[in-house]
Amino acid sequence: MAETNEVGNLSPFGPARSTVQGTPLSKDEIEKYNDFFKASLYLSLGMIYLRENPLLREPLKKEQLKARLLGHFGSAPGQIFTWMHFNRLIKKYDLDAFFVSGPGHGAPAVLSQSYLEGVYSEVYPAKSEDVEGLQKFFKEFSFPGGIGSHATPETPGSIHEGGELGYSISHAFGTVFDHPDLIALTMVGDGEAETGPLATAWHSTKFLNPITDGAVLPVLHLNGYKINNPTILSRISHDELKNLFIGYGWKPYFVEGDDVETMHQAMAATLEQCVVEIKKYQKEARESGKAVRPRWPMIVLRTPKGWTGPRKIDDNYLEGFWRAHQVPITDVHENPEHLELLEKWMRSYEPERIFGKEGRISEELKSLCPTGNRRMSANPVANGGLIRKPLKLPDFRDYAIKVEKSGATSFGSMVAFSKFLRDVVAQNQTNFRLFGPDETESNKLGKVYEAGKKVWMGEYFEEDANGGNLAPAGRVMEMLSEHTCEGWLEGYILSGRHGLINSYEPFIHVIDSMVNQHCKWLEKCLEVEWRVKVASLNILLTALVWRQDHNGFTHQDPGFLDVVANKSPEVVRIYLPPDGNCLLSVMDHCLRSSSYVNVIVADKQDHIQYLSMDDAIAHCTKGVGIWPQFSTDVGEEPDVVMASCGDIPTQESLAAIDLLLQHFPDLKIRCVNVVDLFKLIDPKDHPHGLSDAEWVSIFTEDKPVIFNFHSYPFMIHRLCYKRPGANNLHVRGYKEKGNIDTPLELAIRNQTDRFSLAMDAIDRIASLKNRGAAAREALRNEQIKASAYSYEIGTDPPSLKNWAWSHNGLWQKVASRIQG
Amino acid sequence: MAETNEVGNLSPFGPARSTVQGTPLSKDEIEKYNDFFKASLYLSLGMIYLRENPLLREPLKKEQLKARLLGHFGSAPGQIFTWMHFNRLIKKYDLDAFFVSGPGHGAPAVLSQSYLEGVYSEVYPAKSEDVEGLQKFFKEFSFPGGIGSHATPETPGSIHEGGELGYSISHAFGTVFDHPDLIALTMVGDGEAETGPLATAWHSTKFLNPITDGAVLPVLHLNGYKINNPTILSRISHDELKNLFIGYGWKPYFVEGDDVETMHQAMAATLEQCVVEIKKYQKEARESGKAVRPRWPMIVLRTPKGWTGPRKIDDNYLEGFWRAHQVPITDVHENPEHLELLEKWMRSYEPERIFGKEGRISEELKSLCPTGNRRMSANPVANGGLIRKPLKLPDFRDYAIKVEKSGATSFGSMVAFSKFLRDVVAQNQTNFRLFGPDETESNKLGKVYEAGKKVWMGEYFEEDANGGNLAPAGRVMEMLSEHTCEGWLEGYILSGRHGLINSYEPFIHVIDSMVNQHCKWLEKCLEVEWRVKVASLNILLTALVWRQDHNGFTHQDPGFLDVVANKSPEVVRIYLPPDGNCLLSVMDHCLRSSSYVNVIVADKQDHIQYLSMDDAIAHCTKGVGIWPQFSTDVGEEPDVVMASCGDIPTQESLAAIDLLLQHFPDLKIRCVNVVDLFKLIDPKDHPHGLSDAEWVSIFTEDKPVIFNFHSYPFMIHRLCYKRPGANNLHVRGYKEKGNIDTPLELAIRNQTDRFSLAMDAIDRIASLKNRGAAAREALRNEQIKASAYSYEIGTDPPSLKNWAWSHNGLWQKVASRIQG
Repeated sequence: MAETNEVGNLSPFGPARSTVQGTPLSKDEIEKYNDFFKASLYLSLGMIYLRENPLLREPLKKEQLKARLLGHFGSAPGQIFTWMHFNRLIKKYDLDAFFVSGPGHGAPAVLSQSYLEGVYSEVYPAKSEDVEGLQKFFKEFSFPGGIGSHATPETPGSIHEGGELGYSISHAFGTVFDHPDLIALTMVGDGEAETGPLATAWHSTKFLNPITDGAVLPVLHLNGYKINNPTILSRISHDELKNLFIGYGWKPYFVEGDDVETMHQAMAATLEQCVVEIKKYQKEARESGKAVRPRWPMIVLRTPKGWTGPRKIDDNYLEGFWRAHQVPITDVHENPEHLELLEKWMRSYEPERIFGKEGRISEELKSLCPTGNRRMSANPVANGGLIRKPLKLPDFRDYAIKVEKSGATSFGSMVAFSKFLRDVVAQNQTNFRLFGPDETESNKLGKVYEAGKKVWMGEYFEEDANGGNLAPAGRVMEMLSEHTCEGWLEGYILSGRHGLINSYEPFIHVIDSMVNQHCKWLEKCLEVEWRVKVASLNILLTALVWRQDHNGFTHQDPGFLDVVANKSPEVVRIYLPPDGNCLLSVMDHCLRSSSYVNVIVADKQDHIQYLSMDDAIAHCTKGVGIWPQFSTDVGEEPDVVMASCGDIPTQESLAAIDLLLQHFPDLKIRCVNVVDLFKLIDPKDHPHGLSDAEWVSIFTEDKPVIFNFHSYPFMIHRLCYKRPGANNLHVRGYKEKGNIDTPLELAIRNQTDRFSLAMDAIDRIASLKNRGAAAREALRNEQIKASAYSYEIGTDPPSLKNWAWSHNGLWQKVASRIQG
Repeated sequence: MAETNEVGNLSPFGPARSTVQGTPLSKDEIEKYNDFFKASLYLSLGMIYLRENPLLREPLKKEQLKARLLGHFGSAPGQIFTWMHFNRLIKKYDLDAFFVSGPGHGAPAVLSQSYLEGVYSEVYPAKSEDVEGLQKFFKEFSFPGGIGSHATPETPGSIHEGGELGYSISHAFGTVFDHPDLIALTMVGDGEAETGPLATAWHSTKFLNPITDGAVLPVLHLNGYKINNPTILSRISHDELKNLFIGYGWKPYFVEGDDVETMHQAMAATLEQCVVEIKKYQKEARESGKAVRPRWPMIVLRTPKGWTGPRKIDDNYLEGFWRAHQVPITDVHENPEHLELLEKWMRSYEPERIFGKEGRISEELKSLCPTGNRRMSANPVANGGLIRKPLKLPDFRDYAIKVEKSGATSFGSMVAFSKFLRDVVAQNQTNFRLFGPDETESNKLGKVYEAGKKVWMGEYFEEDANGGNLAPAGRVMEMLSEHTCEGWLEGYILSGRHGLINSYEPFIHVIDSMVNQHCKWLEKCLEVEWRVKVASLNILLTALVWRQDHNGFTHQDPGFLDVVANKSPEVVRIYLPPDGNCLLSVMDHCLRSSSYVNVIVADKQDHIQYLSMDDAIAHCTKGVGIWPQFSTDVGEEPDVVMASCGDIPTQESLAAIDLLLQHFPDLKIRCVNVVDLFKLIDPKDHPHGLSDAEWVSIFTEDKPVIFNFHSYPFMIHRLCYKRPGANNLHVRGYKEKGNIDTPLELAIRNQTDRFSLAMDAIDRIASLKNRGAAAREALRNEQIKASAYSYEIGTDPPSLKNWAWSHNGLWQKVASRIQG
């Protein structure tokens, strides 16, 4: 094993080797840290193994073990070591800090610290700081009805569960944005570090302003192993490793070894160096007013997996090998020798002496921890609802698109919204940000740059002055990584602020799993009493499937809604506003809401506008409704219900009504529009669901419903399967029939175009049984004629505008009919 | 602008600066490359703009432009430059190479090369190498009914579409594994490089064996801009950039500048240096038999976006700015000056001279390209079906679990399969690999290591010898990045080999978007005549939701099936084998199949086994069927249908039958099991769908069906909504009700446990209307009693085994009833 103090040996064993030399700790302090470390390690093992006899005051019997052993020891020692040594600096420099636990199953580390800091007992009084409380604390870990082996929402001080790996760094950055005094001490697992999202999140420094934002201090834990494999970063040369992090823009400090005493000094000195550097860079920037990107400090901590455990058990390596990953000795129930070994190991942490008669650590040991909210497990930033201030929202009605005649105006819904959004940004310059993967301008939200530029801490070129919209301080966060944008936004929200992510619809699937996990986090938070609600996570989807004709098949995927709809109805909301005023109303609602994931689907192209602002508010408040101005069934039973959900499907559905009335002026058509998708579902399955009576009053029980839907048609069937007359629902939507097309042709392929819808209606309206054929044929011919353009070589395809519905026709026809 | 030849200036302008010095090209050659470059650039602009007058033989009129301008010019010059200079080396060293185009919308680059190499005209004779063909070639680009702006399946030589960004490097590595002579020249966009998947894929070198695998030569294109933002990697210091790639394990060579003549020399010399190094490393390893990981060469190419275009248009930067991203001049229809500017620009590429009278480049120019299959756009590796050899499969029946009495055996289905898989690996040592994110052992597939170890080109420790299962050459690929594993597998399959990815069920959502894109690729390939079918992409999901009680809520997500079910029915298949022999039968089927995405869901714990191998084959062949051995309705109409899909739900459903018969021995119960999920859907919506008559013969038209499902229950409703009697379907599945639980309690929360199912049946069976109450109450009490264990402090939860169904009871009861 290495005997030198030079860093660079790949072995995690030996006396400490570190970039920073120094012995900041006295002998007495080292003793105390030794004891504190032992106390923490003991707790970690206790959580995994013990049901009774929590301080081993009697010889350990197998009956005192948990029957099912669960939990992970492997990464706990390194995480504990980092946490406890940072406490010294929190006290010394009065730091505002909290801890992000990146490695998988890191709960023993963070729970032990929370318990020793006294926070756990304050939050959960039954888990008191005595033998009785300790026993309960051990028992409930990974125990049915208890708490999990990750830093779940029940964990004080946590905003990052770490069930699915890869988001510690992006979460940490999101948390320190606009929190200039905060330090996120962020433990990164070397397994986690192999994931894509983590590998790119290191670049977040290019978006961190040292004046307005706090700092992230990453500690990459070279723990050496994953479940069953070595980690990449622990098995490349020191040179490569060092270069990698310099390349990512960091200044890496190395701390390596397993000799506890020398490691104390090395870690204490290194963490202090990092804190001093962080404060220096912040001071320089803040005093000069000049924000530059320093090479921020980070630590690479190389210690053996399962550090301080037995190196070998029988002939098998444990410490410093993957076998230390989870429960380190698994057969203690059946193997008395192994039980004895476990007991000996646990006693090596001296529980009796360290927890003493009272069953708690001494005041002297406790004094290593900060107090009050300076304790990392008590930092209010990790219960963001506590510190959240409501957004200042301008009156969205002031941004209304003027709609004098329904359907007579064409305007960009997104353009109207972007003005509102600009002013939201303007009025909330320290607690609202817009996130997106390089698509904000393309998504027609560029107006926001007037109130907040894109944050950019990379180099600047002269070109940037004209159309770059870049600035060291800004409100828009753009990096071509949906993962990083989403992770930042989650961190930003969970620490008490507000935000919105905008994305092309097809590529939002990139973060399916992140949104799933955030939904689960929110759902669980609702069950945790002390968690205060945070702002909703708002996802605005545009560049929609029906306008991805030219980009083709890869850009056509409206299926994110299916992913979201599977999550708990307590936390998910999906809106498809049919026009601009509805979009404004919906967005205002979403920005005010809390603890949801709101998904809003809206086209970014020019669009026919239907509703005045008052009508839009009324429509969005109901979430679904009959549109009398496009209906001809007033006071009567309709022949057919023409329903739609989504802005482009709504346009086609209305155009189909127009076509139908051209051929059958007497037809009684009911026009229905759905904004709030969950209105369709049974109220037992989602709180927004209509009652069956309300449902029937809108959709009828026995009339054909031609439902034009934005996404995959199956979604509507799954939402409505219980409804009376569900088998009268004929849903049209996207069915993976794509190509390079015109918008019309794309719709025709999927039978969501006006002609297909009108023909569909004719086929299903009982009263047209004997008189629909001619009209049907005429429509079919019209459709063929219209779509023929697309294929005729030498002719350009019809533009979108040519195929937009001629506005006035329908309105006048319907109006004259309604007015007699 | 820089005048020095030293690399490191962030500006993309100026004379060439390059790490490698050298002037391998003669003056004559430079002239030819100039012309070839011009020809390619002309084609790129032509595709975007021209409908007629393809060689500008007359003055350009706006009527000759396409009405809707689509396509992306920005990254084309750099990609073309790389491709054409690599051709020299293909010829000189007789290289077997192909091109991966990573940057978004790179089609103009690859299409122009394919056309100039003559491949495009061979594949699509109408696009001949003359004026007429050229006009068609231009016209169909980004034109309705034509081809897209990515390297879609219609593109000869492409295995990587690049619609969704981030997978070029992992795809490239997948392609060169087990293709020792292949070089994947891989263009990486600097936008793409910001994505997580790309950022971690650089580590793929730790899994590449220089003896058995080929090489990837990445060219990171510092094009400078994304849609509307600078790229991170183009705006960090040269030092950071260099360090980053050294850190990733590469040896970066820089080529920077915009002066075409000097850039020719620099690029030619640099590419040659890389090829020589690659061949040297391969030779050393192959001659010595010693596989080490060299620092493989790569190139960083810094050129202006829209290189060779106008630097400014009016007052706006174009070349070297984000405005060059897409259509570089957009208002040519309305602005005559801009039209003139475009014409001047296009004429600067001298189309009349270069394409001459014949409308094609001279033989002299063409001789810069290789011939036959050495042309990168003709490499058969990119039409993998051409070179695919069928797998050698052992007879899966030889691995059968012996099932003498249905339900009387308990065994690990995955363990049985792992033996089969081991022998598949053993018999296909150069064209089958198993992929997984560090979970293969945990997923009980560790047997495969007997036939093929885990590939590992990182450092080795002494611990690895005992339980490491690592080797420089192996068959198992494990990196904690689902993205990289999936990307490797896709590349491996698309280039003509076979494979399987295994993953925990909850975290497969990480690659939702990748699987979506692969499905779209496969679907489109079916429409492309010359594409030969490739092996299916097989995804084995385990660590299932119902056994994630202890890991809690974050690990509970069976929703991947919803994502897959949205894709084209031509390419997706979903199987949920109820036991081990069914798993074997299904896996054999999937491994033999082609051009599908097969998703197989199977638990990894010990499991009750129901079917003998013969019965399993029969059952899986049908995909859905009545299980007579658990049914009591023989020859009669049932009172209730107890249906199940998924191994754990099947167990609970059968146990519910047992409970029902305990209380009502005379009940006529029909037991139905579904293996092939798409059997449930209407045959119009999926080729596997049962006819309505078949459906009714199994599920009845009017009897209650208690359907216990593995995933979210809505899935079954969406599949079955059209079926006769669909409203008699009562589906139980996962509904986001999770916690740290026992398996039983988790099931109870979601009403998928035996008691809930049995009570549900009682409530719905007509004949029990007046006599079900007592049994129902008894079951409820039994359920409470059973689940109470979980919460009683001081008692351990019941083990899984305790709650496993007592095997013999049901079988005997049903058998005695059937036999009279």
